Order: sequence, then structure tokens, then C-alpha cells
Amino acid sequence: MKVAVFKLPQRSPDDVAALQTLIQNQQLDPAHIVAIVGKTEGNGCVNDFTRGYAVQTLKAYLKTLVAPEQVEKIVFVMSGGTEGVLSPHLTVFTREAVTPETPRQWGLTLGIHHTRAFLPAEIGTLQMVETVAAGVQAAIAEAGLLPQDVHFVQIKCPLITAHDRASNTQPNSYQSMALSRGASALGVAVALGELKLEQLAAIDLGSNMALYSSVASTSAGSELKNCEIMVLGNAPHAASAFVIGHSVMQHALDVAAIHAAIAQTGQSSAQVVNVFAKAEADPAGLILGQRSTMLDDSDISHTRMARAVVGAVIASVLQDPMLYVSGGSEHQGPPGGGPIAVIARRS
Amino acid sequence: MKVAVFKLPQRSPDDVAALQTLIQNQQLDPAHIVAIVGKTEGNGCVNDFTRGYAVQTLKAYLKTLVAPEQVEKIVFVMSGGTEGVLSPHLTVFTREAVTPETPRQWGLTLGIHHTRAFLPAEIGTLQMVETVAAGVQAAIAEAGLLPQDVHFVQIKCPLITAHDRASNTQPNSYQSMALSRGASALGVAVALGELKLEQLAAIDLGSNMALYSSVASTSAGSELKNCEIMVLGNAPHAASAFVIGHSVMQHALDVAAIHAAIAQTGQSSAQVVNVFAKAEADPAGLILGQRSTMLDDSDISHTRMARAVVGAVIASVLQDPMLYVSGGSEHQGPPGGGPIAVIARRS
Amino acid sequence: MKVAVFKLPQRSPDDVAALQTLIQNQQLDPAHIVAIVGKTEGNGCVNDFTRGYAVQTLKAYLKTLVAPEQVEKIVFVMSGGTEGVLSPHLTVFTREAVTPETPRQWGLTLGIHHTRAFLPAEIGTLQMVETVAAGVQAAIAEAGLLPQDVHFVQIKCPLITAHDRASNTQPNSYQSMALSRGASALGVAVALGELKLEQLAAIDLGSNMALYSSVASTSAGSELKNCEIMVLGNAPHAASAFVIGHSVMQHALDVAAIHAAIAQTGQSSAQVVNVFAKAEADPAGLILGQRSTMLDDSDISHTRMARAVVGAVIASVLQDPMLYVSGGSEHQGPPGGGPIAVIARRS
Amino acid sequence: MKVAVFKLPQRSPDDVAALQTLIQNQQLDPAHIVAIVGKTEGNGCVNDFTRGYAVQTLKAYLKTLVAPEQVEKIVFVMSGGTEGVLSPHLTVFTREAVTPETPRQWGLTLGIHHTRAFLPAEIGTLQMVETVAAGVQAAIAEAGLLPQDVHFVQIKCPLITAHDRASNTQPNSYQSMALSRGASALGVAVALGELKLEQLAAIDLGSNMALYSSVASTSAGSELKNCEIMVLGNAPHAASAFVIGHSVMQHALDVAAIHAAIAQTGQSSAQVVNVFAKAEADPAGLILGQRSTMLDDSDISHTRMARAVVGAVIASVLQDPMLYVSGGSEHQGPPGGGPIAVIARRS
Repeated sequence: MKVAVFKLPQRSPDDVAALQTLIQNQQLDPAHIVAIVGKTEGNGCVNDFTRGYAVQTLKAYLKTLVAPEQVEKIVFVMSGGTEGVLSPHLTVFTREAVTPETPRQWGLTLGIHHTRAFLPAEIGTLQMVETVAAGVQAAIAEAGLLPQDVHFVQIKCPLITAHDRASNTQPNSYQSMALSRGASALGVAVALGELKLEQLAAIDLGSNMALYSSVASTSAGSELKNCEIMVLGNAPHAASAFVIGHSVMQHALDVAAIHAAIAQTGQSSAQVVNVFAKAEADPAGLILGQRSTMLDDSDISHTRMARAVVGAVIASVLQDPMLYVSGGSEHQGPPGGGPIAVIARRS
Repeated sequence: MKVAVFKLPQRSPDDVAALQTLIQNQQLDPAHIVAIVGKTEGNGCVNDFTRGYAVQTLKAYLKTLVAPEQVEKIVFVMSGGTEGVLSPHLTVFTREAVTPETPRQWGLTLGIHHTRAFLPAEIGTLQMVETVAAGVQAAIAEAGLLPQDVHFVQIKCPLITAHDRASNTQPNSYQSMALSRGASALGVAVALGELKLEQLAAIDLGSNMALYSSVASTSAGSELKNCEIMVLGNAPHAASAFVIGHSVMQHALDVAAIHAAIAQTGQSSAQVVNVFAKAEADPAGLILGQRSTMLDDSDISHTRMARAVVGAVIASVLQDPMLYVSGGSEHQGPPGGGPIAVIARRS
Repeated sequence: MKVAVFKLPQRSPDDVAALQTLIQNQQLDPAHIVAIVGKTEGNGCVNDFTRGYAVQTLKAYLKTLVAPEQVEKIVFVMSGGTEGVLSPHLTVFTREAVTPETPRQWGLTLGIHHTRAFLPAEIGTLQMVETVAAGVQAAIAEAGLLPQDVHFVQIKCPLITAHDRASNTQPNSYQSMALSRGASALGVAVALGELKLEQLAAIDLGSNMALYSSVASTSAGSELKNCEIMVLGNAPHAASAFVIGHSVMQHALDVAAIHAAIAQTGQSSAQVVNVFAKAEADPAGLILGQRSTMLDDSDISHTRMARAVVGAVIASVLQDPMLYVSGGSEHQGPPGGGPIAVIARRS
Repeated sequence: MKVAVFKLPQRSPDDVAALQTLIQNQQLDPAHIVAIVGKTEGNGCVNDFTRGYAVQTLKAYLKTLVAPEQVEKIVFVMSGGTEGVLSPHLTVFTREAVTPETPRQWGLTLGIHHTRAFLPAEIGTLQMVETVAAGVQAAIAEAGLLPQDVHFVQIKCPLITAHDRASNTQPNSYQSMALSRGASALGVAVALGELKLEQLAAIDLGSNMALYSSVASTSAGSELKNCEIMVLGNAPHAASAFVIGHSVMQHALDVAAIHAAIAQTGQSSAQVVNVFAKAEADPAGLILGQRSTMLDDSDISHTRMARAVVGAVIASVLQDPMLYVSGGSEHQGPPGGGPIAVIARRS
């Protein structure tokens, strides 16, 4: 299988012009699309409808080109929030069969999986962890990857809307986004052997942040009820022109981790196609030992500010603001930090 | 004792011009001030410094006129948030001794009390409920009121800042505001016999909203560590020109309750000096059976929107936007509603 | 022609369930739909994509039922912003031919018109006023209305996005929304003879707020380039079960105008189907002579707060929060006020 | 004269604990304070009262130590907004006479000046430019600096509140902040010979952004009516342990300019005491050629986002988030960029 990656600017959530151009120029065959990961310009929180709007538009467009049931198999991960310099865009992943004669080399491969739908009461629970872990393992198997060669697991997961909420003792929508992201991330950690399911207690979810995955990136949205999983890694006999690396930012200003992730691809920063990073406000309210006001600002959600900060830092290193930085890194990297993956094109 | 009430506009949190004018014109003796209850134009949430700024300004001004230790005895309750039409203002309460010859009638009286400081870990607990209940009883006794004649208990209570927070399992600042308001309100309910302390379990605090006081109004702020309590009611042998009534709004559009509270004063709406109401978004996300989006709007805190709504409704009834509407009515009236008190001047 | 009106709740901008139910139950024939006017739950400002999302969803759904070219003739007016208690919903207007035998009575009729697309440089100019005026007259003629019987003219108009903006001397997106709404409203005033085109100078647009229409309601959005116009009024020989009335709110707390508009329908408030009102912060920063902080609050757009206030006031009168209140009433009613129209079903 | 610089964390706008400690330990003589430049944790826009609160607190504290009239001579520049990682703090500048025997070297010196109060109608006009230019020249003369050795001119300037605004044709508060900052910056450019007064037309103010100063940093606030000016530069015979350098960021991600400003001090980044930078959203809505959504986000003021971005970028270079980054760089550096000054302690 040959995996390719295309980064396309979007002028609004319903803009598919760049994708249309690639398809019309036969640079991209819509039948090969397996995943579309986007940054859309909403608030990235509960009432962010830019995610659903983008997915609805993409699906409607692609259904004019390929069979509807094939479009429904595509993993759509729209992460809301392009605060600061982050520039709205789509990253389109394609996968196609290759002939035995195709030359092979160490490079990018991917697997996908859709879990079953979750009940509102299951969101953020050990049951969700276990179901996600099984889904991640299915995606790894589909990709033909070894666990140690997995560099990035992207999951889109559901949330609880005010409407779903059965009682006041259940988490509210905003809290449920964090719980859903956290349980999904722990599912990744369990699937990859970073943690064992037996190590986890219900009480750990959303609170024991010493437990985390180094490659999970999870994003919650109201537009789906199940989890959609995409696993990325390098395999020895890939047919791809791309390679992936990763690292873990220990805090929002961890420039060294950004350079380490780039270095792991073996390519220069000029070859980088996109970066996939998670961001969050440090729960201790500190950054490099100094007080930060993000968590105490009741006018701007701290997830929005965390994206603005981490997006600006990575963009300043790469001199490119068209990056995937997603907010809320519960159980994804250490508190205040998060995993960062880099896809580069071989020079 | 003779209680008087003055409502004064503020052009900014540090504006004491209207108070200064009254004092210079000898319409108000600063030595008689026992409480100042204000609406300041901040966000009413964690990082609202307009409350502290107003208090600092008032204290500095009053200390130029009366002894510092007397100024420190004044109850300052600044509630942040003048969303919508609400107009920033101060309500100044004075109390002075009267001679035996002073004519008496059914009318307004008040009592105050300052509790001890609370540890961050105590905020929102049964311990806080109990301590507040004792403080309210002390204030009722000081006022010479019967519990059934109490119409309004205003409490300013502390919150937990990010800095105070010992661990991730503790509530964050915004959550702590709700817990502190709720425990203080239940303290009022216990003091007045609306509820018995034995009825309350730790689990009820902040969650069992069927338990509430019909006269409590509590407001959290980072500018204090203890609770400051003011009790208002009518007594048979008062010397005041004012009278108080109250009701409970069942929801944000409960116009009937507004009229009932006015009617209870026995005065026409033209005689109303100020209204003191609590507001919150209905936790069920509904208003009169229809979906409301307040709780799912991640860009504007629902406490801000709740104040805008209830403020507009009461202002439309009274045709006066200079009202005290305070957000977050946990255990203060039923879910989505809140107590409303009206002070009127006898015609 | 027989005009009917249906008010349908929406659980999200892409929810067409209530419409689907009506159509499936044969209570509403999709071929008769001429206009859909909605309140969607975005911020109602520049980056509000809930409007476009709702329109995209409605069009896609209706195209499964009626010819695409007929769907494109429908006037879609989505006004963003359901702040406070306002409940997201759609008002669907249908129009169908009736037989000569159908009994007639004084009642609701409507006309629609789509103008040509405007260049960014035309938005907010006298050229726009003139083009809109001609469009409104065309819609009035189509409706068979006399100008004096027009009670409401709804216009959806374009804005200038950051992308369209040719230079710094052009208005920015947020300013362009106000200019577009204002020019469209003056177009209504000219069409109805409230003002003469010769009375208007370029300098008046967006600044001389003494010039206004009493029946215009205009709403700007990034999802269209032209103006879409719907005119509503009463005609003597209508076949409709509905009747319309209107008034002008002089300020955000003008309860008398609400009652006047209801009274003009000749029906009780229980018969009201929907209210269509415009709201804005008083440009003088005052409400009933008291200082309002809406215009100085840099955290919440004043158009959002104005909708919350006027929505709450009207909802408290009607005890129904499912209302159409649209923000930004430049040249629509007096400064700080706005037109209000009421559609009622004959009892 | 010997100039010293102290950077002190603040836990809230009314926190003077760090200053108190320095004074009590006799590390800082309050009688030598000439300027205090702070970042406070408000929104940095119209209704940011953290600036006034900090100044009120500092003045009240210092008046317990030095003569009130001396405290009134101190230049207080509080810039609101610590978005993202920016950490609230004060930079205290002291100046004291030295003996002829004191060793001299190339190093930091400063001058200050207070202009007369401006009328609301003067804010943002050529009259303001001229008055500010004269004030800057007075401050340069006081410092004994040559114009070419000036590296930073900080000005705190007034704004027009809704209350001051005489008519709708005048700019609103938020617009007036930009106009006031811009006119003040052009005053700096004129004073330093970067531009000639004759080159400027009224129409240029706030619109011709090709005209700018490379060393001006201006910040508007409602807490003053005049301009307060502080000029910083290096002089050959200074007695200071500090040295200053500057550069101009061409855009928000201009890392090279940050390194250039540090290099100009001749010191390593470990010796940097503080950075003073201006930030703004690129008016073209682009960053490095890609679309940015800052200007179209109606929920978060773009000045807030610009501070978050530039603050994060500089903090990532210095690995220190306690920086002075001020929003709104009209006529301060090129569009989308801004001046950056660095003060370092000689190693």
C-alpha cells in the first residue's frame, strides 16, 4: 500500500476548492482517500459547528465522485480552533494498492478503524478505554505496523450535549469533552502497551495525569457518537514518499521537542508537510515556573489560548502557520504538554 | 435603630463621586454605613478585579472620613457583571441609633456578621454550611428579627484561585465559585429553618438542587477569604422609611414573581428603590420547555448570560435598569430560578 | 394565494427533523415553501458559520423532495445569535394558489425578491440603497400589497470578509455588517416612501440614525453576495389564517411597543406564532437615562448582548422564548430601538 | 545618573509583595523610582480596569514611603492583557544621582515626561502627534541621549470612553484606543526624525501604516487623560549595569528580529532582564502568506490574540514567559509587526 499526504488551505469550513483542483488535475484520486484531518475555524469547544459543517460539505462533494458507502468509510477528524496564527486547512491522506514491482523503503503507512457508537453514560469511562484500545489495535493490524513504529494515533471522539445529559451529577458538555478525549487517549496507551488496562482505575480517568500516551491525539466533537481512529507509523517496506517522527512537548514552550520530532524524520524542516500537536494549559497554572493566567480567564476558554500559544511556537520554528494543533491534551503527554508528530516528504 | 438605603450610580469601579456628594451635602453620615452592596462592571467570574478595585477605592475614601477600624467593619458585597442593561451602582445601607421618641412602624431592619476565614479545602463543604449558618443566626439576632420576617440574606463568599488549588482533584476556580455560593446558601437555609443541617449530606452540595433557600443571595469573589453576611427583614418597631418584600422566581421569565415581590412591600412599583435577584441558566438547558443554548455556548459564560436575561426582564417591569442581579444561584431558589427581594420606600 | 406560517424548533443548525415530520405528515407541502427565516446558534457576527450550515442542510434536504431550481428560489434568512433565552428555530413560509371559491378575509400575504450580487465596494453605499429599494418594490408588487399595508420587510444582505477587503481604508468585516444592514434598511425606507432617495447623502449611511425605516429588519451574513428580500403585509382578500401587525420599540425595554404590535394583529398574545424584532445597544451608552456597559465591554460583542436583552424582554411578555430577534438595527427604528412585527393566527 | 531595572512578578493587580520585599531588604530605594511598566491580567481593551487598579495600589503603597507629590511624578504604564503564557509582572525603573568617581560605561539611561491632558476630540489627531513629539524631545533631553541612541519610547495614552463620546461620528472607545496609540507613535517618529511632521496629513492617522516609528510602544487606557512618556537608550558615560538594544519584528513569527534585538545588547539571552514588544494582527489577514482568522473572530478581540502569539514566540526563544508584550501596534513598526526592545544586564 502507498500512503500519500496532501495539505490544503481552506477559506471557510465549506471550502473544498483546493481539493477540487487536485482532483480535477488528477493529482489526487478521490477513491483513494482514507482520512481527512482538518483544522476548522470554530471555537473548538461545545458549540463549534464548523467541524460538522466541514464534514457535511466534504461528504456531499465526495459523494458526487465516489460511491456513498465508500465516502462513509473515510475517517473525518475536524479539530476546531485556529486561534492566533493557525491557518485553517485540511490534511488529506490517501492509500492505494501498489504492484509488487513498486520500490519499497522505510516510510509512512496508516490504518483506520471506526468503533461502535457510545452511550452518553459510557463517555469517559473504562469501558470507553477498552473499546478504543481494541479499535486502535485493529487499526495497527490493518496498517501492518509494529507497536514501536507507531508515531501518531488520531482519534475523533464524541461528547455529551446538554440535551443528552441525564442529570446534574453527570459531567456537562465542556467537561465531557475532556473526559472523552482522556479516555480515548488512555485507550491508545493501552493498545500500544504504554499502560496496562489493569493499571487503570475509574478514578484515574480525567484526574491522574501522570498516566498518558506519548502518541495519542484526541479531539471531541458533537458531530459523531462513535470514535474514529487513524494510526500513523513507519514500516520497512512502505511505498510512501513520506516519513513520520514524533516527540513529546513537556510544556507549551518546549522548542527542543519540536526540533527532536523533526529530526526523527531524518529530514530538514523545509521538508515538513505538517505537524500534529496537542496543547493544553498547564493544570498547575504555571509555565516554566511563572504564573500563567489562562486557567483563571473566564472570558476566553483556556483550550483556545493553549492552541494559540503552541501553534505560535511551532509556527515560529517552521515559519509556517498551517499546522494541526488541537486543544485539550488530557492523558496525551504530561500535564501542560502533549505529543507532537511531524510528517515530512523525503528530500 | 433606623435603617436607610441609598442607590448611587457608578461611572467606573473606582467612582465614589455620588457617595461623596451625598456625604458633602450631609444627606448621608459615613459613620452610619454598615454595608455597601454593588454591581460592578467586570465579568463576574474568576478574574473579575472590578470587585476588589471598587472595595479598595471605597475603603480608601471612607478612611479619610471615619476611623479605619470602623471602615473594616462595613460589609462590602461587590457582585461583578452588569451584562445587558444592568447599570453599575452601589446600594449603601446605613444604620443609626434613634431616640425613644422616634415614631416606629413596620419596616426595614438589618444585621451583619463576618465569619472567620475559610481554608481552600473548606470551601463548598458542610463545614462551611455550618459556619455560615451560625453567622446568619448571629446577624439575625443583631438585627432583632424573627426568622419568618427575614426577606433577604446577602453573603459574599470566597473562591479557590488556581494558586490555592492543591491538586487536580480539587475543584477549579470557576467550579469553586459555584460550590462556595451553594454552601453559603445552604447555610442560610439552615439558619432560617428552611432545611435542617442533619438533612444535608456532603454529596448534596452543588448537586441536589431540590434543596434551597428562598431568601439567600450569595456571590463569590477572590478578594476575601471569609464570608460577609447581611440579613434584611421587616420588624414591627422599626424606624425606617423603607420596607422589604420577596418572592422566588421559578425561571428566568417569571414575571409573576417580580410582581409578587413588589406587592409584598405594600408599595407601588414607583416606590421601589432597588431589587436584589439571583439568576442562573436552567441546568436542564430549557426555558419554558424550549431549548436554550446558554450552557452550550463556550464563548460566553452562562452566568453572564443569565444576568443579562433576568436583569432585562426585571428592568422591563420596573422600567429601571439600575438593579442588583447576581449570577449563579446554586441552592438559592429552584434550578433555573432564584430569590428576588424588593426594597421600597413608603409612599 | 394562501400564505401559511410554521415555527419549528431546531436542535442544531443541521437539524431538519421537525420540518421532515411536517412534510411526512403532509401538513406542509415542500413545493409551497417560499421563505425560511431562522435563528441559528452562532455568534451572529463575522465568523458565524451556523447560518451557512443551516442553509446548506435545508437546501440539501429540500433538493431530495423538489426540483433544485425551485429550491434555489426560496429566500433563506438565517440570523445568527440565540443569546440568553432565545431558542433556535426556523419559521417556514408557504404560499399556494387557491381556487376562486376559497373564502377571503383580511390577512397575511407575502412577496419575495432576489437582487443581483453586490461588489464588496458597493456594500453600504447609496447604490446598494437604490438597488434594494427597487427589489423591495418588486416584492411588494409580487405580493399585491399596498405600501401602507406592509408590516415587515426582512432582508438578508452580504458583508465584506477580510479576504474581500481591498485596503485598510475599506471597512473591516464587522463594520461592513453594520453598513450593509443600514443600506438595506434605507432601501426599504425608500421603497415604502418613509424616506426619499434624494434626501439621502452618502455621509448619512451608517451615521445619521435619525433616518430609518419602521418595518425593515436586515441581517448580514458571509454566505451570500446579493440581497434576499421578503415583504410581509395584510391584504383585504387574503386566504391566510394569519395576520400581521407591527410597532417600533423606542428602546430595549419598551414593553408598550410589544403590546402595541400584538394588539395591531387584533388577536390575543396566546395566538401569536412568532415575533420578529431588531435589537441594538443604544449608541449613546444609555438605557432609560442610566449608563449601560454593553458598548464598552470588549469581551462580548454588543450585538450579542442586545439580542439577549430584547429577546428576554419579549419572551417575558409572551412567555415564549422561541422568537426571532436579530441584532444590529442600523437605520431600522430609532437609535437603541428597532421595529417589531408580530404574526398571529386568527382565533 | 545611574539607571537600574527590576522585574517583579505580580499575583494579582493589587499585589505589591515583591516590591515590598525589595524595599524592605534595601535592594531598591522607593525614592529613586521614576517609572513602573507593568503587564496586568485584564483584557487590554476598553473595560480593562486591572490597569487602574494596579496603579491605584502602587500609588497608595508608595505614598506610605515617599512624599505624595514625588509619587505623582512617577510614570506608570500598565498594559493590560497577559494572554497565553504571558506572566503578570512589573518592571520598575530607578534613577539616582552618582558621584563623579562612579565608573562610567556605555549603558542604559532614561528620561520621562508628562504631557498636558488631551480633550476627547484631540485624541488621534495631528495636534496629538505634535504635542507628543514635543514631549518625547523633552524626555530625550532630560535623559541626555542622542536621538540615534534611543532604543525604546514607551507611552501611555488616553482613550475616548462611551461617556466622552460627543456623537456617533466620533470613533467609539475601541477605535479610539487604536487612534490614540497611532498618534502617539507618530509623535515618537517625528521627535526622532524618523518622519517629518510636514509629511503627515490628518488622513494618514490610523490608516497609512507605511508610516511608523521603529522604537515606539504605545498603550491606551481609560485611567489617564494625558500621555506619559518614558524614553530609553544607551549613553556613553552611563553608570548603569544594564544595556538596551532593539529591532523591528516584521511579522508575528519573526524570530530573527528577536535574536537581532538580543544581539544588539552585546549580551547573551541568559542576561536578558525583559523584552518590550508590540503586537498586532496583520491587517491583511495573512501571516507568512497564509490566511489567519484573528481579524474575523468576533468572539475574541484580535489584540488579545496578537499578544498571545507574539508573547509565546518571544517566550519560546528566551524560555521565559515574564515579558512585556503590548497589543495594537498602529504606526509602531510595519503592519502586522512591531518594535522589540531588549534590556540585558552586563555579564
